[in-house]
This record gives sequence, structure tokens and C-alpha cells, in this order.
Amino acid sequence: MTTTRCTLTVRYAETDAQGIVHHSNYLVWFEEGRSDFLRQQGVNYTDVEKAGYFIVVVDAQLRYKSPAFYEDRLCIETTLEKFRGKVLEFSYRVLNQDERLLAEGRTVHMVIGKDRRPVSLPEGMLPRT
Amino acid sequence: MTTTRCTLTVRYAETDAQGIVHHSNYLVWFEEGRSDFLRQQGVNYTDVEKAGYFIVVVDAQLRYKSPAFYEDRLCIETTLEKFRGKVLEFSYRVLNQDERLLAEGRTVHMVIGKDRRPVSLPEGMLPRT
Amino acid sequence: MTTTRCTLTVRYAETDAQGIVHHSNYLVWFEEGRSDFLRQQGVNYTDVEKAGYFIVVVDAQLRYKSPAFYEDRLCIETTLEKFRGKVLEFSYRVLNQDERLLAEGRTVHMVIGKDRRPVSLPEGMLPRT
Amino acid sequence: MTTTRCTLTVRYAETDAQGIVHHSNYLVWFEEGRSDFLRQQGVNYTDVEKAGYFIVVVDAQLRYKSPAFYEDRLCIETTLEKFRGKVLEFSYRVLNQDERLLAEGRTVHMVIGKDRRPVSLPEGMLPRT
Repeated sequence: MTTTRCTLTVRYAETDAQGIVHHSNYLVWFEEGRSDFLRQQGVNYTDVEKAGYFIVVVDAQLRYKSPAFYEDRLCIETTLEKFRGKVLEFSYRVLNQDERLLAEGRTVHMVIGKDRRPVSLPEGMLPRT
Repeated sequence: MTTTRCTLTVRYAETDAQGIVHHSNYLVWFEEGRSDFLRQQGVNYTDVEKAGYFIVVVDAQLRYKSPAFYEDRLCIETTLEKFRGKVLEFSYRVLNQDERLLAEGRTVHMVIGKDRRPVSLPEGMLPRT
Repeated sequence: MTTTRCTLTVRYAETDAQGIVHHSNYLVWFEEGRSDFLRQQGVNYTDVEKAGYFIVVVDAQLRYKSPAFYEDRLCIETTLEKFRGKVLEFSYRVLNQDERLLAEGRTVHMVIGKDRRPVSLPEGMLPRT
Repeated sequence: MTTTRCTLTVRYAETDAQGIVHHSNYLVWFEEGRSDFLRQQGVNYTDVEKAGYFIVVVDAQLRYKSPAFYEDRLCIETTLEKFRGKVLEFSYRVLNQDERLLAEGRTVHMVIGKDRRPVSLPEGMLPRT
């Protein structure tokens, strides 16, 4: 199980009228965690799509522990939990600058081809577990 | 268990480079389902916040079945599954114009006061289960 | 000059920490105004893209007059100001339920083909000015 | 006239069905440019708001030159063009990793107090022109 870390600063546009980050942005951040994970593994998702493969989300779970605020400096920890054939599962932890856990989650993904049918990623596009 | 239905048309800005709706938008649509549910129950969430109560998301689960496309005419079905004291639980189903189930999910919410501590909603702001 | 009107309800996710709608959403609403304008003119933008034509934004201007709030019921007025060959220009007015003008703007668009080069829309996909 | 530069990587969620970044995101990036500009000038916008001042957008202009794609590494150049009393004006240039100019723009801002009336920023919260 490999875990990667990337950082991002909370944008004003990500806040809502409660004065905290809107909960939908965590799915965007998880995705950034995955993108960065793949890049760190030498897999460029742009190339994956150019080759005709798409990694689509089939399942997502989020647990919100503590709010994030504008200009918070966040760390997204991304772990590839499972990778078998056509299915990938990632877990995530979002921490702020005080190392407080803000949220954690899990996403399950299917690899599909241009015809939107499940397919296995070819060698060379495989991340290491 | 009350279920309400509201409709919305997929916006171009909600699509992504896969040509389908980005998965984070379903959380936004679930929220619109909740807003509409509360309005149909005679509860105005703007008034709830003005009175110093905030309904925050603590947990979310989403299962993606089939993609949504630009200009799809969606129906969001929202059900209040549980409502005890300070905790609300909603479930959702998103269907397109062909009555195809695109996604389903569940969110759990906590009622908090201005000090961000759990508190019960006063009478008159209570939705019916 | 044809003007069309469509309505939408402000979403919670569209608000920001100032308690008002984030200014970037007006570009999304203008786009919804355009989509609706084209539909009312019998032009389906999904079909336009399927035929290999894309209408891209090259210029946008926005003037913000008064804030929009969660659950505001907005009217988007969309006018096709100019349409010559490969260029379209639209203007917009956003009003709230009290008919207060919240914002107005203008966007200029170019029609391009799959090679991203300017091209004229074929007959049958032309909106009336 | 001070100019600051900050970088960001295009997120998948920022793309749309045309395969390029949705044009509304440039307003979000301009805002990130402003946030970073103020931080580099020693002004923390979170503190500005805590002190009861809000910098609201009253006018925005954008010119789109060339599309941005997922994973593009962008540079946002932000310049404070004018700053007189209650009004600030910024200009922006967005360049990609090949130093290609993707978009440029301008925003005008008003400083308001908690009553939403125009007011001057106090000393110590003033950025240098």
C-alpha cells in the first residue's frame, strides 16, 4: 500500500455561506489526490485518456470531522487500497496546517474503454499498490 | 418516511472532459433535493440559519450507476430516513428523463448552533419524517 | 433582437463565505441563459456538438450591482445582440424575485470545428437574431 | 505597479465536455491570484474579513485566447493597477507551461463594511500599488 501526499490552499470560491468549505469540494480534492498519486507513480492520467481508457468513479464515501476554512493549507493523503483488474480503490485523509484530521473517505473506480465498457488497464499504465 | 421530488436540467459547467457530469455535482444536487424537501415541508433553511442553526454534513455515501449528460432532465428523489434530536439522515435517488437510475446516496447531518456545537432544532423548524 | 427569460433558484453551493453568491457563478448562469435561448429557438446545443461544432467563449464582461442570496429566485434575461458568420454576441441581465437588477453582462463567442478552427454554423443550427 | 506570480495545476473537475477548462474557472483563478498577491504584500484577507471589511467584485472582464487542459501547469500574473480609497483594480494574465498566454482580464473591487456600504481599508491592511 503506497501513500502519497500533496498540499493545496483552500480557495475563497470553495467556501459557502456557513463560512466553511462546501462539502462537495472534498470529492474534488480526493480527485487531486488521485491525480497526484498517479503522477508520483509515473502514470499520467492525460495519457491514459488519450490511449482510450477512462477511470470512472462508481462509489464514494466521505466522513466530515472538522471544517476547513479559506486559506487553510491542506494535506491530502492518498492511498491505493486495492487494484485488481478493472477496479481500483483509494482512501484519503485531509489534514489542515495544524495536522487536524478534517475528513476521510474512500472511492472505488472502474476502468472503462471508449465504449464505456469495463476493461483492464494495459501494462505501463498500472500504478503500484 | 416522506419522499419529495424536484427536477433540474444538467448544466454545461457540470460536465467534465469525459463528456459526462463530474461526480462531485451529485452532492450539490443532493443538497438541492434537501433544500426542496425542506421547502415542501414548510421549513425555510434561510430562516433556520437566520435563527442561528446550521445543518452540517457529517457523512455522505454515493453510488454512481450510469452517467448524466448535458441537458439531461433529472429528477432528484429525496427521503428523510431518520430524524432524532440533533441528527438527520436523508437518502436520494437521481433519475434521468428515461427514468434510468443514475445514482443513489445517503447523507447524515448534525444540527449545530453558532458556536458549532450540536443542538436540537426548535419546534416549528422540524421537518416531518 | 430576441430576448428569452429563464428562472433558477440559487443553490447553497453557489454561496461563499461572504454569505452571498460567488461572482464566478454568474458566468455559469449566463451559459444557462444561452442554453435556454438556443432551446427556445429550436437549436439543441447537444446536437450542435454532435455535428462537430463548438461554440467557445472568447470574451466576457460582467457588472455586479447587487448580491444574490441562497434560495433567491432569479430571472436570467438573454439577448442575442449580434450574429454574423462565425461570431455570436449575447447580453444578459440577472434579476431577483423583487425585480432588482443583480448583474448584467455580455459574452462573445466563436464557432469552431473539431480542429478548433473558426467555422460557420450550418443552416438549421442558426438561431434567429 | 506590483506584479506577483503564483502557479496552479489544472484540476479534472475544472474541465468541461469540450475537453478544455470551463471558462468560469478563470474568475476563480484570478481570485487566487489576488489572494496570493495580498499574502505576498503581507495582507491576509482572512484578517481583513475578521476586521469587518469585505472586498467585493463590482466589475470583471475576461479575454480568452487559448484553452487550458487538465494537468496544465499555469502561472497567474496579478497586477494591482489602481488603488484609491475604496476601489481596487487588478489585471491578470494566465500563462501555461509553454508560456503561452491563455487569458487575460481585469477586475474592479469595492471595499465594504458589515453593513455592505463602501468604506476605506484602514492602514495596515493596505496593499502597495
